[in-house]
Amino acid sequence: MITALAGGVGAARFLQGLIKIVPEKELTVIVNTGDDIQLHGLHISPDLDIIMYTLAGIVDEEKGWGIRGDTFNCLELLQKYGYETWFKLGDRDLATHIHRTSLLKGGLSLSEATSKLCQSLGLEVKLLPMTNDKFETHIRTDKDTVHFQEYLVKRSAQDKVIDVVFEGAEKAQPAPGVIDSILNADTIIVCPSNPIVSIGTILSVKGVRDGLGKTRAKVAAISPIVGGAPIKGPADKLMQGLGLEVSAYSVAYLYRDFLDVFIFDNIDRREKKRIEELGLQAIVTNTIMKSPRDKVQLARAALKSVKSR
Amino acid sequence: MITALAGGVGAARFLQGLIKIVPEKELTVIVNTGDDIQLHGLHISPDLDIIMYTLAGIVDEEKGWGIRGDTFNCLELLQKYGYETWFKLGDRDLATHIHRTSLLKGGLSLSEATSKLCQSLGLEVKLLPMTNDKFETHIRTDKDTVHFQEYLVKRSAQDKVIDVVFEGAEKAQPAPGVIDSILNADTIIVCPSNPIVSIGTILSVKGVRDGLGKTRAKVAAISPIVGGAPIKGPADKLMQGLGLEVSAYSVAYLYRDFLDVFIFDNIDRREKKRIEELGLQAIVTNTIMKSPRDKVQLARAALKSVKSR
Repeated sequence: MITALAGGVGAARFLQGLIKIVPEKELTVIVNTGDDIQLHGLHISPDLDIIMYTLAGIVDEEKGWGIRGDTFNCLELLQKYGYETWFKLGDRDLATHIHRTSLLKGGLSLSEATSKLCQSLGLEVKLLPMTNDKFETHIRTDKDTVHFQEYLVKRSAQDKVIDVVFEGAEKAQPAPGVIDSILNADTIIVCPSNPIVSIGTILSVKGVRDGLGKTRAKVAAISPIVGGAPIKGPADKLMQGLGLEVSAYSVAYLYRDFLDVFIFDNIDRREKKRIEELGLQAIVTNTIMKSPRDKVQLARAALKSVKSR
Repeated sequence: MITALAGGVGAARFLQGLIKIVPEKELTVIVNTGDDIQLHGLHISPDLDIIMYTLAGIVDEEKGWGIRGDTFNCLELLQKYGYETWFKLGDRDLATHIHRTSLLKGGLSLSEATSKLCQSLGLEVKLLPMTNDKFETHIRTDKDTVHFQEYLVKRSAQDKVIDVVFEGAEKAQPAPGVIDSILNADTIIVCPSNPIVSIGTILSVKGVRDGLGKTRAKVAAISPIVGGAPIKGPADKLMQGLGLEVSAYSVAYLYRDFLDVFIFDNIDRREKKRIEELGLQAIVTNTIMKSPRDKVQLARAALKSVKSR
């Protein structure tokens, strides 16, 4: 059994490769919900949606999010009605948010709603939100404090980051299955996702970091930082804001207490020694996933690394 | 000042003609909300939407409801998620329901939400829901009792009608402005709408029928029944179910206590005498609205009838 910790696009691409070499049923994915946001009365879970759409084969591959070929007619009229429309809600995509919101209103937990969505989309993978409780990532900029989505999408990650705040983290309980899937896995893979706002959020949920320390599973992480910058997203800006070096090493350092293996890109091979000095097995390989083949090869390298250890 | 009582498509077409000959600002329309329904967590007001879209010039003229050129991509995925999709929600149309639902959840009344929607769509007409309270038209068939939309849309009005029940009518208060607009109008026009489930609902709201009896305005109604059948909708089936004759006369009879003028189609001219015997002025004219010109001519005839009296 494999358990993965995942954010959005980078994780989804990696998992696309992984499900080609392991049966979906053997895979549990714990997904960041710190990006979740209420918009227009709807509950939106961006990372859960990205993972779902990608693994269901309906994602807009070019953007990495949303549904392929979606239209934006509802959003257009919402704009006329005076709504802020920086969050690009497609018409098909809306069905997911309407369904999830309706299930939550009906008394289901986010876990249960996610399970129903996955079932409808034909997924065999088990997707677990990290928590069913309110947990919101806020970014403190030099001007104000805003929801992560507002920082990222509305303001295009242009603001100077002073701090990252996990609203609700202290009270948020892990969703059912989260701790079990960590303790009982054979292998745990930390996907190439933002170490602060995707993996950092999951790690801050009660019991997760402890569980990763206690589990007898081998734990491998893949660096989302390649050549000193993230493949996608604002990880560099957030890391800099928190006074961290933006490097593969820096990610390994953040995970050092629970990690066995750290996988990072060929381009960063000169960091191997520093990473090994953290007590980790350091695997250098191609981590840039352009083609389906890249994804499968990276997944294979990750699985091999924990077996060969 | 003119106040109109309105259901959906028939009323909307008539009002399209009316606003070409009177300034929109002089017109208040009291709209049936007995058709309102909660679907997928959204508050849908079919008749308000039909009137709004029609007067804003964005209605799908052929169907008489919905927005012209709308797509149905959200609905398609909702179907995959297991939703009943007999109620045809277009993607643009959805924005209206999302906006309305969001405003209601934010504590606004249906009146206030309607006013905001009208403003965004550029309407100068004052649209008033008949009530801000829960009021649902249910149809008792020979098998069960269902929401009017379910009877009409899902089951295509095929069931035998035993009774029509106005759920909530006893407690429903008229929305702000409804009674005033009846008492203080110069002219009141009952649009060519279903006398049972469109006008009948409005008449059943506390104070409306009384107000129509007391007002010093002239009250004219246009028959929705032409040649023994409705132009559109299930009025015949509902009237039959209630043991009523399906005729222009029958509609005049239902309104006889508050009506001054009854306008009906040339084809029904042989009913003139019976209608006059109800103590009403009977105006025979073309009431079938195919072209924009038909609509304007009918509106002009209606206004003339109350002035010439």
